[in-house]
Amino acid sequence: MKDLTSTALRYKNGKLHVLDQRKLPGEEHWHICKDENDLVALIQGLAIRGAPLLGIAAAIWVGHCAARGDNREELTNTITLLRASRPTAVNLMNYLDRLQKLVDSGADRLSIADEVAAIFAEDIALCAAMSERGAALVEHGDSILTHCNTGSLATAGIGTAIGVITTAHKQGKNISVWVDETRPLLQGARLTAWELEKAGVPYHLICDSMSAGLMAAGKVDRILVGADRIAINGDFANKVGTYALAVLAKHHDVPFYVVAPQTTVDKHCTDGASIDIEQRSADEVRGVAGSFGSCTWSPVEAPVYNPAFDVTPAELVTGWILNSGVYDLDDVIAGALASK
Amino acid sequence: MKDLTSTALRYKNGKLHVLDQRKLPGEEHWHICKDENDLVALIQGLAIRGAPLLGIAAAIWVGHCAARGDNREELTNTITLLRASRPTAVNLMNYLDRLQKLVDSGADRLSIADEVAAIFAEDIALCAAMSERGAALVEHGDSILTHCNTGSLATAGIGTAIGVITTAHKQGKNISVWVDETRPLLQGARLTAWELEKAGVPYHLICDSMSAGLMAAGKVDRILVGADRIAINGDFANKVGTYALAVLAKHHDVPFYVVAPQTTVDKHCTDGASIDIEQRSADEVRGVAGSFGSCTWSPVEAPVYNPAFDVTPAELVTGWILNSGVYDLDDVIAGALASK
Repeated sequence: MKDLTSTALRYKNGKLHVLDQRKLPGEEHWHICKDENDLVALIQGLAIRGAPLLGIAAAIWVGHCAARGDNREELTNTITLLRASRPTAVNLMNYLDRLQKLVDSGADRLSIADEVAAIFAEDIALCAAMSERGAALVEHGDSILTHCNTGSLATAGIGTAIGVITTAHKQGKNISVWVDETRPLLQGARLTAWELEKAGVPYHLICDSMSAGLMAAGKVDRILVGADRIAINGDFANKVGTYALAVLAKHHDVPFYVVAPQTTVDKHCTDGASIDIEQRSADEVRGVAGSFGSCTWSPVEAPVYNPAFDVTPAELVTGWILNSGVYDLDDVIAGALASK
Repeated sequence: MKDLTSTALRYKNGKLHVLDQRKLPGEEHWHICKDENDLVALIQGLAIRGAPLLGIAAAIWVGHCAARGDNREELTNTITLLRASRPTAVNLMNYLDRLQKLVDSGADRLSIADEVAAIFAEDIALCAAMSERGAALVEHGDSILTHCNTGSLATAGIGTAIGVITTAHKQGKNISVWVDETRPLLQGARLTAWELEKAGVPYHLICDSMSAGLMAAGKVDRILVGADRIAINGDFANKVGTYALAVLAKHHDVPFYVVAPQTTVDKHCTDGASIDIEQRSADEVRGVAGSFGSCTWSPVEAPVYNPAFDVTPAELVTGWILNSGVYDLDDVIAGALASK
């Protein structure tokens, strides 16, 4: 299979190299993926994260397995294993479904490799398209609040919400960004801060609990977030904390946009209530752990509730910024997402 | 001056012992206060925190200085220094004003010591009174969400919001508690979790961003928080994150109560807009530090916005639970807080 390169994934000389995002921003460590169990562990441990990137990493691995000569049964087993690695991000399922279809049809390794390369190139193009559409909505001097990480560490391209931000910045719109830290795994503080610094976009880091006060003070002009799965009625799952921002945005009359590629829309999902929400380990909330160090600050056996995602209902969303266009609630009710 | 004992402060044989709350829950370390600069550092570093407790620690120190024979000018200088240690908690100002009045009137060391003992005993009685009033509002089986730490580590008595919770628990009301961690300084994860474990009250620890999803799922029956300063129109300042909870509570129709002693009402403060909000160090948001360890996870020079408090407007409050009674917005508009 031919080489592929993005900020956080590299397929080179028949090996999948993964930028270990647990170690950012302190260390840029590339891990060579050993086998499918290693890849599942990297995904579950969040060394690879971001809904589109998850799916692409899994797709590359399937292409790699086909290239080395795995048979139909072996490929199907690998796809089944990878499909179950995380339950919420739909891109993973979408991309693996495309490859499973090819496998079922008896496609050869070259056709599978071509499909993987197409998925990779498509993701880059989707990012560029939605970032252009989103940037057109950003006004000169805007203060934008964003959550989690949705940039080049979360996709093969320039990202979703962060793609909009860096595109608007490159257009000279003089924007600044409020980056919320995104507990428990700190993707905002570690990854978004790192990406915005690299891109030269002015930002301030805040705790998740500080956004409401900023909105009350009129210091947030719009909120841009990504999505892990969008139902056809417009409800969407995203990193826990997104729903609170949507409610706060409504209360303060701050425009709230979700930015995602059409591959994040789940056509089998009619509404948010049917989205499976992953519960994660108590230790993530009892403290922190990473290459930056580790601490447990709560009582060691503290009982914890730790959902990785929450669901934001469509009526709180100002607009859905997809690669194909920007849709409002009327468009969505009229079936804009179902037809994408 | 006679001995005084609470969970987090002890005046014994002429020395002020302070439970260093930065080291909890891992270590119960008592620090002997050396001088007024040491006390200011303990307050600013949050070794001593909680609006009522801050004020009591400062009052005890003034009593101690009077007992050792400091003259009127020396006492006035000490009061001025302590008064400036933190700008938001009004109890500090209220208690020091009482002592300054005595000093100005030429009171002797015994009268000052009596006033300090009275302040201490009053705080215990205030806690008991508001906890009883609040517990009467708690229903059997309630799930209560609370923020920051408002218990016996924050007052001389059983606390404010946590006083209500432990009182309802002792009444056999079978309650459970959602403890949000309260970034950046983790008073919920470290202190409230520790206090509730000691009291045997069932709880789950969550990140601050998780409360909205819990409310949407109908898993929060009421929210109880403390206050650092209450304006006479009912607006109040409390630990950052409180305002977001109030907006979320309104959206989800969850009753939202503030629990505080009358000493937290600032009669000179007409509304929340005039409350001075302390900005704290960037390092608090870039990572964590405590006896549990320390880490910096963001880019080392990440720009940060770190307000210690936010202001919740009166119209979001279901009730003000004071030692003197429970007041609703109509009562407050009619002057209930101004006359306390």
